[in-house]
Amino acid sequence: MENIDYSSHLFSEAGPEKDVIISSRIRLARNIEDISFPNKAKDSERKEIVEMTKQVIADQEKYQFNLLDLYEISDIDREILLEKHLISRDHAKRRVGKALFLNNKQDISIMVNEEDHFRIQVLSPGMDLDKLWKKANEIDDLLEENLDFAFSEKWGYLTACPTNVGTGLRASIMCHLPALNLTNRIDKVMGAISQLGLAVRGMYGEGSNPAGNIYQISNQITLGHSEEDIIDNLKSVNQQIVEQERKARQIMLNNEIDNLKDAIKRSFGVLKYAYTISSKEALQLLSDVKLGIDLGIINDLSADLISELLILIRPAHLKISEGRDLTNKELNIKRAEMIQEKI
Amino acid sequence: MENIDYSSHLFSEAGPEKDVIISSRIRLARNIEDISFPNKAKDSERKEIVEMTKQVIADQEKYQFNLLDLYEISDIDREILLEKHLISRDHAKRRVGKALFLNNKQDISIMVNEEDHFRIQVLSPGMDLDKLWKKANEIDDLLEENLDFAFSEKWGYLTACPTNVGTGLRASIMCHLPALNLTNRIDKVMGAISQLGLAVRGMYGEGSNPAGNIYQISNQITLGHSEEDIIDNLKSVNQQIVEQERKARQIMLNNEIDNLKDAIKRSFGVLKYAYTISSKEALQLLSDVKLGIDLGIINDLSADLISELLILIRPAHLKISEGRDLTNKELNIKRAEMIQEKI
Repeated sequence: MENIDYSSHLFSEAGPEKDVIISSRIRLARNIEDISFPNKAKDSERKEIVEMTKQVIADQEKYQFNLLDLYEISDIDREILLEKHLISRDHAKRRVGKALFLNNKQDISIMVNEEDHFRIQVLSPGMDLDKLWKKANEIDDLLEENLDFAFSEKWGYLTACPTNVGTGLRASIMCHLPALNLTNRIDKVMGAISQLGLAVRGMYGEGSNPAGNIYQISNQITLGHSEEDIIDNLKSVNQQIVEQERKARQIMLNNEIDNLKDAIKRSFGVLKYAYTISSKEALQLLSDVKLGIDLGIINDLSADLISELLILIRPAHLKISEGRDLTNKELNIKRAEMIQEKI
Repeated sequence: MENIDYSSHLFSEAGPEKDVIISSRIRLARNIEDISFPNKAKDSERKEIVEMTKQVIADQEKYQFNLLDLYEISDIDREILLEKHLISRDHAKRRVGKALFLNNKQDISIMVNEEDHFRIQVLSPGMDLDKLWKKANEIDDLLEENLDFAFSEKWGYLTACPTNVGTGLRASIMCHLPALNLTNRIDKVMGAISQLGLAVRGMYGEGSNPAGNIYQISNQITLGHSEEDIIDNLKSVNQQIVEQERKARQIMLNNEIDNLKDAIKRSFGVLKYAYTISSKEALQLLSDVKLGIDLGIINDLSADLISELLILIRPAHLKISEGRDLTNKELNIKRAEMIQEKI
């Protein structure tokens, strides 16, 4: 088994439309024909699938995948992978024959034996769905050349859950929408998005006002449309969200510049000096500061650092950084330290 | 007429017990025999008193008094003197024959024709009543050698208001009592002080919780006790207040260190980064930061600077610094700038 590179952070680089879009992601659900879906499969079958995958991709110089055995890794490593959005809550549960293949850059991963045999995931900072789709396709082709995927001429790719049947594709964008929230336009915009067949959820906490003003928007329909159609639909909705958010920011700049400047600078001051910061407060303060950076109110600080901090301030990352387990109280103190070290 | 030295700030130096006592002050009320009190005197009489005073003290090399004619100075200079606590609200009202003699260091002043013909005032950072009493006495002697003071064998010095008859002495200390406030002990302590014949009021705003946790404590009784007794009484009460406040701080350090650290550092962050700060908020934030400095939670910052800022953030000082009149909104922005320039 190989180790996780804790220091690698995808968000240390910029991406397109990064003033609003934090990251984009594509995942494909695939299964091997004639082997039960992971929940029904025997331990030996799941182990075999991991082994088969290893044979196919282990010596691919291009990707340099590391294999992480989800049965063997420590609890803290499990949490780290969760916080990095590299595995799902379900995949974090300890079970024989669950694995993650992860490339060095940590932008391509394959969950093996989560709900489906394969969940191919590609991730990028900013808005980059076309490039992601190309990458995901390559991994898909690589596996499909060597393995028999469960596929029906009528339905497309077969998956454990009917909602994924067809393309097995879920494309999503993570967007930062503080101005839509502050100007009370978010509900209207999100309502419109839902009617376009897309799902909206908070990245941290559900509800109409998730912590940190971060929303994840993804396709719900996987059947009856081509992958390109699904991605194009999300792209066009994304474009509207980006425009609406930028418009709301401009309105605030025009009408509320003093209040906005004051609120953002105060958040920056608290972030820079508070002795203890809860996770929820940190997300709100980082959201304010990111808005400040994107609007040019705060300079000498990169928005990418804020995206990086969204991960670094989470409990497992703080514990790894401290080198020991931490109580909740200690976590809040360590979180403030971590932020102040970085900004 | 001479000009005010705007840049001179008494509080740029430290004083005894400065962790609790911001400043101490002594004033003596005196009147010239056979001339009506200022409110009843003719313009020519008041002018004559100013002239007589000038004759006595103008060539005193030791003090180097400047004469400020309160009829002639600009409104903004009037406000500056008020904010420096060098004249009273009453003395700021424009009227022929009102003057202020002020030494270069701005720690000795004589209001001429306020309520009484003379109000000799001496001021010092920290707790220094004995030294102040010596200084006030010297000025008093200097005037009395050359002028006939209204004095009755039975009552002592005669004054316009009966509450000042006798010694004409008011001694006061300005203390910073954040921990007594935060631990809800302030009312008890202030109640006890009132019963000892001392008056308590907020330095900025009245009531039991004045802005900035700054309280002014002074003697009420001027008659039937010697000056030394009055001062000794205030000194002994002062000692108790200092001890009580220090005890309350120690209790907070023992029981609430994390909350205290957090609150103080947050206030520091806001003070350092807010875009706009009202006068009232500034006093509270400066109070928090001063407590932080005195407790060693904030380093690399002097408590004297905080005392200086208490004056510098007031409207007239901000206007002078900006070189023009400012609206309320502009004042709040300028106040934040001024603080951030200094800390």
